[in-house]
Amino acid sequence: MQQLTARHFADRLERGAAEARAAGYDGLVIAPGPDLSYFADYLPVATTERITLLVVPTDGDPAMLVPALERESAAGTRASAAIRLVDWRDGEDEYVPAAALLKPDGRYALSDALWSMHLLGLQQRLPGARFEAISHALPMLRAVKTPDEIDRLAAAGAAADATFEDILGVRFAGRREREVAADLARLLREHGHAQVDFTIVASGPNAADPHHDAADRVIEEGDMVVLDFGGLLEGYGSDTTRTVHVGEPTDEEHEVYETVKRAQQAAFEAVAVGVPCQEIDRTARAVIRDAGYGDYFIHRVGHGIGVTTHEPPYLVEGEERPIEAGMTFSIEPGVYLPGRFGVRIEDIVVADHDGGHRLNNSSRELHLVA
Amino acid sequence: MQQLTARHFADRLERGAAEARAAGYDGLVIAPGPDLSYFADYLPVATTERITLLVVPTDGDPAMLVPALERESAAGTRASAAIRLVDWRDGEDEYVPAAALLKPDGRYALSDALWSMHLLGLQQRLPGARFEAISHALPMLRAVKTPDEIDRLAAAGAAADATFEDILGVRFAGRREREVAADLARLLREHGHAQVDFTIVASGPNAADPHHDAADRVIEEGDMVVLDFGGLLEGYGSDTTRTVHVGEPTDEEHEVYETVKRAQQAAFEAVAVGVPCQEIDRTARAVIRDAGYGDYFIHRVGHGIGVTTHEPPYLVEGEERPIEAGMTFSIEPGVYLPGRFGVRIEDIVVADHDGGHRLNNSSRELHLVA
Repeated sequence: MQQLTARHFADRLERGAAEARAAGYDGLVIAPGPDLSYFADYLPVATTERITLLVVPTDGDPAMLVPALERESAAGTRASAAIRLVDWRDGEDEYVPAAALLKPDGRYALSDALWSMHLLGLQQRLPGARFEAISHALPMLRAVKTPDEIDRLAAAGAAADATFEDILGVRFAGRREREVAADLARLLREHGHAQVDFTIVASGPNAADPHHDAADRVIEEGDMVVLDFGGLLEGYGSDTTRTVHVGEPTDEEHEVYETVKRAQQAAFEAVAVGVPCQEIDRTARAVIRDAGYGDYFIHRVGHGIGVTTHEPPYLVEGEERPIEAGMTFSIEPGVYLPGRFGVRIEDIVVADHDGGHRLNNSSRELHLVA
Repeated sequence: MQQLTARHFADRLERGAAEARAAGYDGLVIAPGPDLSYFADYLPVATTERITLLVVPTDGDPAMLVPALERESAAGTRASAAIRLVDWRDGEDEYVPAAALLKPDGRYALSDALWSMHLLGLQQRLPGARFEAISHALPMLRAVKTPDEIDRLAAAGAAADATFEDILGVRFAGRREREVAADLARLLREHGHAQVDFTIVASGPNAADPHHDAADRVIEEGDMVVLDFGGLLEGYGSDTTRTVHVGEPTDEEHEVYETVKRAQQAAFEAVAVGVPCQEIDRTARAVIRDAGYGDYFIHRVGHGIGVTTHEPPYLVEGEERPIEAGMTFSIEPGVYLPGRFGVRIEDIVVADHDGGHRLNNSSRELHLVA
């Protein structure tokens, strides 16, 4: 991986402005979070009620409003040569300098996660301005990755794979989900993650709940255990799921597992440039439906990943935009039998002209753990 | 501390509705984060583009919209008897069921941190509805704490104090700020924190930057080091700052330190029921100004704290609302000499009828570390 330099951030800002212009917007309004890291190489120490806002206009130079007490931190980034800083002090009306960075009748694409408090402040000052969420306004802004970004996602994926290999060696039976989750977090960090975002450990009946977090349940012999974990390594995300079994599985558990594995493989093989995103979802869903589990696959098959864990493209019914070369996304079908057990298998995949390539390469066989 | 039960959450929901009604709102719109934990005993495994939204109407029963794949998790809370669940599936327009929970011409107070993407979705579906940020609409909703909440904040404060006592024993000189920050995080967890939110370690010239995060600078003999750390313990926040010195301070460092300590003490002594919040800020500022450092105290003197680290009341010029018994807030004056050094001292304080009581009781003398 190459080091990111001032040039990379200047390029991102220019491309962001160009894409906003092409789509008829007057600029981007970027809030703290992965968007701001991506464009401005900057994250305040905490995201709070004190507004920090980067404005990337289509016809001028980028400017960032920051609290006076964070000006020094914001000035020291690799993007700082390309971004003019404006500060405001506690006790001032922060929406006056914020609004001054925008056109009163402008149309702006703004960070999905900008606090509503701040959007309301801007709307009050600029009743004639129009705002749209960036992932609706410019869904493909970051969806196609550069080769260097793909290298970073591959490195994050390899670290997640190594974490999975290591977790197979820990004790499951008799320990609480939380304890295995702590092992996952430790292993992700040992394998280079700077940030751990989620460590789902869902055992037995909890595995039937796709977004069950790790809790106090003690894992038992005979449990299916869904492990879904990820975070950021060098600024790019990992997100992988493997399902393991404590001891020998039943025939039914085996059948469900193999169904999900086949669905995941079929969806992976359906990846091709030009295919509508929803087609990947439909492919996985058909395999699961044909096996008789259609009612139990209750979420989309995947989501884009980059500097955020969830971003366009979404592989979901209704998303007709095509897969493009360089897009990176999860493929993660699952079957969830309420009150009994669940299975999910997830890899990050990059699309290229010759099809999909997995960025997760740990075993997708059903591993038996102790 | 007593255990929180279904009754506590039902009471919070009823009180929230009553306060919204009294202020002329049709209800509360609550998003994932501390607000949702407070009212619904619930946090999704991650806050993402998938909407989760609690609506607390003034003339009906609370309802929460959740993604179908998280329904099971949302159903298992201590607040679940009081909250009707509504779910939506990937691929559906989530703003249809969200809007159905609101009156088309209603006026709602909504979580400050609700994603703008979701507010825009609601505004599009309900152009006649009006939304205001909850901390502007109902600033005092959570500002006065119950005795049990004060006990929790005291426990979090005691854990932060113990962390400070322990950090005095670690090596500073020759280590990177990040390493000391990792020590702070580990100690906060050892002393009972479930979540660590910030561990500022700002040494030497970095200490002149109030919100400098810990970075790669190696701490040296002769450095002032600002340590500002906190997180959540049993759902309530800690936030304390101490400034230490590596080796012997100069006369000037000593003078600045004593000035900040006197300002902190004076502001603490100014706490009394009925005093306008801004008066606490003015009291600290006068001490610092009289000592000749007025230009170098570049932030408000404090903020409320509870289930969030920053919340009303804000102790800032312009905030004329009075201190009430049971309010909890930081008092944290600082002096920052650009390019040279900085000092900040911060305690959490609870107001009572006989004045202020500190919830941080670690030493405020200048400690010399190795």
